Amino acid sequence: MLPLRPIVRRILSRSFQTCHYSSTSIFPRTISSLLHSPLSDERANETVTVAGWVRSVRRMKNVSFAHVSDGSTIHPLQAVLTKEQSENLSMGTSVKITGEWKESVGGKGQQSKELLAEKVEVLGKADPLTYPLQKKYQTPEFLRTLLHLRQRIPANTNLLHLRSNIISTLTAFFVEHSFIQCHTPIITSSDCEGAGEVFAIVPEKFFNTPKYLTVSGQLHLEALAAAVPRVWTLSPSFRAEKSGTTRHLSEFYMLEVEAAFIDTLDPLVALIEDMVKTIVRSISTSRVGKETLSTAGEDKAVQLEERWKGLLERPWSRITYTEAISRLGLAAEQKEVQFDIPAVWGAALQAEHERFLAQTVFNGPVFVTDYPKSLKPFYMLPSVSTVPTPGEGETVACFDLLVPAVGELIGGSLREYRYDELLTEMRRHGIAVGDGGEDEGSLRWYLELRKWGSTRHGGFGLGLDRLVCYLAGVENIREATAFPRWVGRCDC
Amino acid sequence: MLPLRPIVRRILSRSFQTCHYSSTSIFPRTISSLLHSPLSDERANETVTVAGWVRSVRRMKNVSFAHVSDGSTIHPLQAVLTKEQSENLSMGTSVKITGEWKESVGGKGQQSKELLAEKVEVLGKADPLTYPLQKKYQTPEFLRTLLHLRQRIPANTNLLHLRSNIISTLTAFFVEHSFIQCHTPIITSSDCEGAGEVFAIVPEKFFNTPKYLTVSGQLHLEALAAAVPRVWTLSPSFRAEKSGTTRHLSEFYMLEVEAAFIDTLDPLVALIEDMVKTIVRSISTSRVGKETLSTAGEDKAVQLEERWKGLLERPWSRITYTEAISRLGLAAEQKEVQFDIPAVWGAALQAEHERFLAQTVFNGPVFVTDYPKSLKPFYMLPSVSTVPTPGEGETVACFDLLVPAVGELIGGSLREYRYDELLTEMRRHGIAVGDGGEDEGSLRWYLELRKWGSTRHGGFGLGLDRLVCYLAGVENIREATAFPRWVGRCDC
Repeated sequence: MLPLRPIVRRILSRSFQTCHYSSTSIFPRTISSLLHSPLSDERANETVTVAGWVRSVRRMKNVSFAHVSDGSTIHPLQAVLTKEQSENLSMGTSVKITGEWKESVGGKGQQSKELLAEKVEVLGKADPLTYPLQKKYQTPEFLRTLLHLRQRIPANTNLLHLRSNIISTLTAFFVEHSFIQCHTPIITSSDCEGAGEVFAIVPEKFFNTPKYLTVSGQLHLEALAAAVPRVWTLSPSFRAEKSGTTRHLSEFYMLEVEAAFIDTLDPLVALIEDMVKTIVRSISTSRVGKETLSTAGEDKAVQLEERWKGLLERPWSRITYTEAISRLGLAAEQKEVQFDIPAVWGAALQAEHERFLAQTVFNGPVFVTDYPKSLKPFYMLPSVSTVPTPGEGETVACFDLLVPAVGELIGGSLREYRYDELLTEMRRHGIAVGDGGEDEGSLRWYLELRKWGSTRHGGFGLGLDRLVCYLAGVENIREATAFPRWVGRCDC
Repeated sequence: MLPLRPIVRRILSRSFQTCHYSSTSIFPRTISSLLHSPLSDERANETVTVAGWVRSVRRMKNVSFAHVSDGSTIHPLQAVLTKEQSENLSMGTSVKITGEWKESVGGKGQQSKELLAEKVEVLGKADPLTYPLQKKYQTPEFLRTLLHLRQRIPANTNLLHLRSNIISTLTAFFVEHSFIQCHTPIITSSDCEGAGEVFAIVPEKFFNTPKYLTVSGQLHLEALAAAVPRVWTLSPSFRAEKSGTTRHLSEFYMLEVEAAFIDTLDPLVALIEDMVKTIVRSISTSRVGKETLSTAGEDKAVQLEERWKGLLERPWSRITYTEAISRLGLAAEQKEVQFDIPAVWGAALQAEHERFLAQTVFNGPVFVTDYPKSLKPFYMLPSVSTVPTPGEGETVACFDLLVPAVGELIGGSLREYRYDELLTEMRRHGIAVGDGGEDEGSLRWYLELRKWGSTRHGGFGLGLDRLVCYLAGVENIREATAFPRWVGRCDC
């Protein structure tokens, strides 16, 4: 039995109820809300407190100016300090400053207001002798050795904002279009389409048989689309490929969409155009877009704005693979262009071909549809309407979206919905379907979606990290995500 | 050189531009849009086409009634068919029906309109002799052997909708509160806090040194919160624990939130209350909430609505761990309750203690704050204001949110932001900090966040799957996600 202590008396006399805070007002005011709020003017001469990291200090004879950023916007706030107040400040120092929010007297730069500091509190020092992020140009390679710090660089901060903006725009877009957001599994039983190398997990026996990190949520999304008609997911995918290109990561986020009861590619293609345009519209009309342009640098900003406009300005183009091959052959023949590898029916489109189509032929996004069956995975539905020319083979109802400068951005297809045909294809590709008695690791469940109440359906996948690169004008996919993983590199 | 073929002539004479579709109108009309649209009445006597799965067929002498659902709502549409039209229909068959959308003549049931079929097309059969989802009660255990099919059961369909609703509400909530959505990595270098068993990945040498599936995104989120002040993520987490409880999965989604420049738990606690209430408000005022209640069954629906109301109706309570221990001790002493394990200062709160606090003492959600340091991970900041009673030890600035019937739902804390103190704690817990020369796998990067420009910060984590269970009144977490994984089980 516990003794009755004085604290119990106190407790019994209290109600334990906390007062109710408004959660928005209880967080410290962000610098963005000061600089960019429409109320900014009304706040003039108010006493405010801000916290952030010092980006630079200019020390004049009697006064110092510190640029302070809290990452809520890439633009720093200018604080006016006495010499003493600025003493312990250097790049990277975290500070809390209370003062008067005033019309700028110097009137230097784009900023019309500044903070006349009354109280300056150093929260965390940043020794200039050791702090790795000094104010000079640092290569992306160097910054990639500092994943835990590089987000403080304005360009990287902006990428975080941009990525977040894209995600929330996508979420709202799919709500509006009555698509359900789902979570497809990360740990899966099969290595799927045999698409490249996969990671396996240990302990190997934890789930009895070997399990892998998913390479795509598509097959699972198809199971969900056999219950609700429109589904999407934004989930991590993995590839253990030992390539170190600027376009590939070992861990990346895939947006995947699946819709039931569709007979053609038309709804998917229309949805994609609508979706990407909605994202671009959101970016180009919001502060995050302006900040993307201003971190890009002047020359690049012009190109980037052109890119955004190019995505928005007119309906996107569409061409079949067969037509594309002919167009490419003609271009080579007429010396419009010279390809290292000729475009031949039955062979994959090379990057140079894709670039030529998107940049030169269409000067904008183009869907290339109906590729040869031999180039595509087992689950695609044969094309309906193409009349094969002699010498050409079967095609499947699929598409790749090609965009200028980048090439393939999105791929999709209708799926084989007929049991017998799918079974044949799976066997032909050596995919276990559980008829050898094995069940674990087989794709019998996927086949069975066609056994009862099968429907025509289709979908597509988009690499989010690639989209971020494309819309931010960033060359290397290792910048598109905060903590990139690729062969040999998994820092942090 | 390719020959110039006739197709090329055709191609050159075409523009390749597709006409621009509106992506919303090009998808087939959903049953939900017919049944629940405010325009439903205006559509009376219109000819419409719907597609879905047959849920049941009633065959009368001259006419048949089929209930058809497409998963866009749990409510089926009633189609009136001729005997011949209904011939090949059975539960699970997918059909496309065109007909007149009319005022129901029979007037049976809640539905006032029905589809007078003109054309019925069977899309995919469902042989009643083999289709596993027949119209009778099937246990959750049985349905868990059919992960690829069970989403077609109304209760499971509803859980997909509910989960999606929660995600989109969260996304909008955090946009409104100026939090950035981030993606923390899945493959990580350290096994983190040593919190339970972890999965490792193979090939082991792919990243040079052993890597693991993340157990929490918190540490990485802290790195991001050292650049932008408010961040959140909804990411998969993993535990290789061999427990098969109804509250644990091997793969689960964690909502994690981190905010910089906060000095107390107050903003976090207020944010959580606001966040959960926003979700509950969204559910309880929307169709997905009504459908959740109607799949729950009458008795459970009453309880569930009470639960939602209980979350909304008043400010949530707050108590320190020390006060809670005293209150529990008093309750036991006064025979208010009998615990199997007495509540003693320094020991973890047992489920029975948590239940008693949330259900009996507070009859609603309660934040228990400032637990003993010895019970919590290495990264928590010591409490500021508690005056330890003799015999009691140090506490840390943390909280658990306890809710009736379930217990702990959310946990959070302020983080140790002082370099030296954190280093001491990490060493005490045997966590590699890179001072043995090792770098890969060490948490030196985490420590370094405190080296330059450190700030007070804190955050919390919420298991999304547990929240889904709690808000849906579902007992077993294996129902909260479409493809659950737990020890020995990774179907599909």
